[in-house]
Amino acid sequence: MAAPTFTIGVDYGTNSVRAVVVDTADGRALASKVFDYPSGDQGVLLDPKQPHLARQNPADYVEGLRVAVGGALTEADAAPSFARDRVIGIGVDTTGSTPLPIDQNNRPLAVDPRWRANLAAHAWLWKDHTSAAEAAAITEIAARHNAELLDPIGGTYSSEWWWSKIWHCLKVAPDVFDGAASWVELADFVPSVLAGVHDARRVVRCICAAGHKAMYSDTWGGLPPKSFLARLDPKLADLRDRLYDKALPPGTPAGHLSADWARKFGLHEGLAVAMGGFDAHYGAIGSGIRTGTLVKIIGTSTCDCAIASASAKIANVPGICGIVNGSIMPGYFGIEAGQSAVGDLLKWWVEGICKGDQALHERLSVEAAKLSPGESGLLALDWNNGNRTILVDARLTGLLIGQTLHTTPAEVYRALIEATAFGARAIVERLREYGVAIDRVVCCGGIAEKNDLFMQIYADVLGQPMLIAGSPQTPALGAAVSAAVTAGKTSGGYDSWEDAQGRMTTVKDKAFTPNPDAQATYDVLYGIYRELHDSFGGVPDARADLSSVMKRLLSLKEHRADATV
Amino acid sequence: MAAPTFTIGVDYGTNSVRAVVVDTADGRALASKVFDYPSGDQGVLLDPKQPHLARQNPADYVEGLRVAVGGALTEADAAPSFARDRVIGIGVDTTGSTPLPIDQNNRPLAVDPRWRANLAAHAWLWKDHTSAAEAAAITEIAARHNAELLDPIGGTYSSEWWWSKIWHCLKVAPDVFDGAASWVELADFVPSVLAGVHDARRVVRCICAAGHKAMYSDTWGGLPPKSFLARLDPKLADLRDRLYDKALPPGTPAGHLSADWARKFGLHEGLAVAMGGFDAHYGAIGSGIRTGTLVKIIGTSTCDCAIASASAKIANVPGICGIVNGSIMPGYFGIEAGQSAVGDLLKWWVEGICKGDQALHERLSVEAAKLSPGESGLLALDWNNGNRTILVDARLTGLLIGQTLHTTPAEVYRALIEATAFGARAIVERLREYGVAIDRVVCCGGIAEKNDLFMQIYADVLGQPMLIAGSPQTPALGAAVSAAVTAGKTSGGYDSWEDAQGRMTTVKDKAFTPNPDAQATYDVLYGIYRELHDSFGGVPDARADLSSVMKRLLSLKEHRADATV
Repeated sequence: MAAPTFTIGVDYGTNSVRAVVVDTADGRALASKVFDYPSGDQGVLLDPKQPHLARQNPADYVEGLRVAVGGALTEADAAPSFARDRVIGIGVDTTGSTPLPIDQNNRPLAVDPRWRANLAAHAWLWKDHTSAAEAAAITEIAARHNAELLDPIGGTYSSEWWWSKIWHCLKVAPDVFDGAASWVELADFVPSVLAGVHDARRVVRCICAAGHKAMYSDTWGGLPPKSFLARLDPKLADLRDRLYDKALPPGTPAGHLSADWARKFGLHEGLAVAMGGFDAHYGAIGSGIRTGTLVKIIGTSTCDCAIASASAKIANVPGICGIVNGSIMPGYFGIEAGQSAVGDLLKWWVEGICKGDQALHERLSVEAAKLSPGESGLLALDWNNGNRTILVDARLTGLLIGQTLHTTPAEVYRALIEATAFGARAIVERLREYGVAIDRVVCCGGIAEKNDLFMQIYADVLGQPMLIAGSPQTPALGAAVSAAVTAGKTSGGYDSWEDAQGRMTTVKDKAFTPNPDAQATYDVLYGIYRELHDSFGGVPDARADLSSVMKRLLSLKEHRADATV
Repeated sequence: MAAPTFTIGVDYGTNSVRAVVVDTADGRALASKVFDYPSGDQGVLLDPKQPHLARQNPADYVEGLRVAVGGALTEADAAPSFARDRVIGIGVDTTGSTPLPIDQNNRPLAVDPRWRANLAAHAWLWKDHTSAAEAAAITEIAARHNAELLDPIGGTYSSEWWWSKIWHCLKVAPDVFDGAASWVELADFVPSVLAGVHDARRVVRCICAAGHKAMYSDTWGGLPPKSFLARLDPKLADLRDRLYDKALPPGTPAGHLSADWARKFGLHEGLAVAMGGFDAHYGAIGSGIRTGTLVKIIGTSTCDCAIASASAKIANVPGICGIVNGSIMPGYFGIEAGQSAVGDLLKWWVEGICKGDQALHERLSVEAAKLSPGESGLLALDWNNGNRTILVDARLTGLLIGQTLHTTPAEVYRALIEATAFGARAIVERLREYGVAIDRVVCCGGIAEKNDLFMQIYADVLGQPMLIAGSPQTPALGAAVSAAVTAGKTSGGYDSWEDAQGRMTTVKDKAFTPNPDAQATYDVLYGIYRELHDSFGGVPDARADLSSVMKRLLSLKEHRADATV
């Protein structure tokens, strides 16, 4: 029997970074260490005058790498099976799109005292929404001149993405733009740091960030053509030359551990540094994604990931925000969809409206669980933060219908959960409609692990058992899986993703299966949801009989109320 | 100068009866006494097994008359100008439709020990909703065979009304039905008691209750034809012979004070007992109703009253629940409309959802008053308890649109007030469309007196100054005005309603006038309200662009938010 080997997964979240040491034989986490970013408000640099601004200090990333990985290794040392010289690879996942400007030596501008005070020189966190005008202009100009650019991203470019942010920087902080030799995604920056890359031109770029956020595609030869970028601003066309020609899928190494970091960590110099990737995509890997599986990462918002064989003829799916060859796993289209508010919607109701706390969340869950589907007579649209998929429209808002003078907070709470489940079903139906098989759903995130009512409603609405990923840290586990594949079988890792996932990822025994009665009622409610969804969402030729919506909901309510007597 | 004279107004509410002694010279209340009904839950007899049941004990009415009038007179005795022998009349207003079964001696069945334990033998309070099936059947049968019966009542017969209740009694308690010599409205019963009527056939009936609730009209010779009633049940056709042929407008005496009551109260035997009437109608009188004036009685729900000259050609106004010649004042069509939930809608939000109390009502009012029209981006439909006017559809429910993750309880609170104001505007516009002039709005009720934000929003939405009735007890004052007119000038009262109202009713100095900016924004919001109202309310050929509703609300929100910076 071969000696055990280990990989490290490092997960850069919004407020902290977590490093996990994983046994490649079974994916078990031997040790885990979290580092909270010291800068700003819980790691986020804010500007009271610009409520949409959210930046991060790149120095936190490097310090976090040192403390989290170092700490995890120290903890792992206590495990009898563990030895640092049997660590064969390290992988990194991050939030994104989170671009930062770098100098020609691959140093973040923000660590230079000259730029430190300038928020534009720091990392532009995924949730920075200062670039709404630029996003709208990019969408409009692309639609007019280069419509093909919008195909893989669902038709609309977002203010959270690469070009919107860099263009906004050029407008509001031209000195920062001019001072930057290049820009990197955080997902590419951290691996380049581990690999000791000191030349901006040599930073390896992952196709995950490039394809989903920077309009990169082999179809048109990489990043968008200079002619297109020049329409935005000639300086962006010039920048293209200082970015990259080629982005690579996971499995290809982003580099090899530098002597410096090897010494710091007591690891082998030159061990595999996996290609960086977004947390959602590596979370999908860590949840055991395969063709036919939908991975739902359920948090404040939800990210859905699926894959389809690259040899399959997957058309561009309207309203699906990203379909990129190789973005999740090489040889497959990586498909990304999402809902803008899920946990946030419940948080708004419980904390923003009912002025409660975690205890109220739990009390409303208990009360809501006593209701049958349809019993409240309520129906909601889940658009309090717009609709990311399948309408791709940030300028949509919430809707609640069916209230009486007896409607309770728990009834609304349940209606909001149901609304997000209906939104989830709309995504699944759209994917299936365009040939993406979905016959297995694996969920991860805090809500999946803690809120049984939520999971049961999803099972009933989707008509599909809901599984839960075995690991509570699927992104870090996915990064560790990637590191094991990148290291390869000869080094004690794996040569195939399927093998690596088969060994290193699991689902919990506990699963939620659909109740046929509930499913039947939810089929009816989903039909009404779609009438409202299509009418208010501007779907052409929407078929709806709005004049009977309230009456149909009342009939369901009365029928269910009778049924429970 | 003539010696002062006085009248007494007695107001039978849902939980108590109030008597007020009024100076006929200026309408000033010299004394007021309230008697809380001792039976049931705050005066309402309930049945835990039948949540829609609400009855009252007729013994409470008689005891209340004795205590309230007696107490008010005792209090009035302290006033130097007052003397009991200068009281010239007494008037009564009540809730309705509140029918009760009586024996041949005009005694309520319920005071007979044989029937006392039977809830069907008591008074069927206006808000008893056990007769929903009968109401639906009456509407359907009338629509098929006698459509003219539905014209004056807006097209739909209600479960709160006379025939629904009596028919339901016949079905569920045939012994009570068979045991009753006749039925009377509470509004007719109390005056008959004061007048010492001991013969069921001699109870004088007011046109107010007959026309608005019992489908009485001179057009078809009084109550509905026997052929129609026989379609419901032959026993109802038989009952018609034991009811009445003629109903009379106010101004005609319902009788003269009996020797018994005169002795009890120390008043002149034979003084004028005014025709009974519903609280809303006498409230309109007490608020100074005249042609062109809309009186809004704003409480948990709202009742709107207007009058139009009987010589004017007022067509039946679709969706207006009652237009009856002489029901408010002789010589005028009495027009009644209403909104099913106004104060109740705010109470639901503050108490039912936010779990607050009066202090929260006040806090939300203060916060909501800081918002500009349109600033929240929210819009609501005021249908949590259905829509009484102009859609006449109990099977409609609430709707709230425009929520974001930042929507606050105060924003929803304001949106709900606005929704009721939009509902009020829909009523005014419908009346004007059919030739009923509305150029003056007088409000009464607790909300009108206490909630300045509410009143300002109504002024801005209606584009009309909102006046407030001078008396806090307009129904009792109206009954006292009616008594003064019934007594006539020769007795020290008045010969004309205009003179009596001109002297005895006032409006407060404080009024709310429209703010032009707010009015302009509310014109836009009302347009969107009508799009939703018509689409969900089933108005034929509704014109709405629902796909842009959320975006238009967001634009208003952004525009207003900028405007306040």
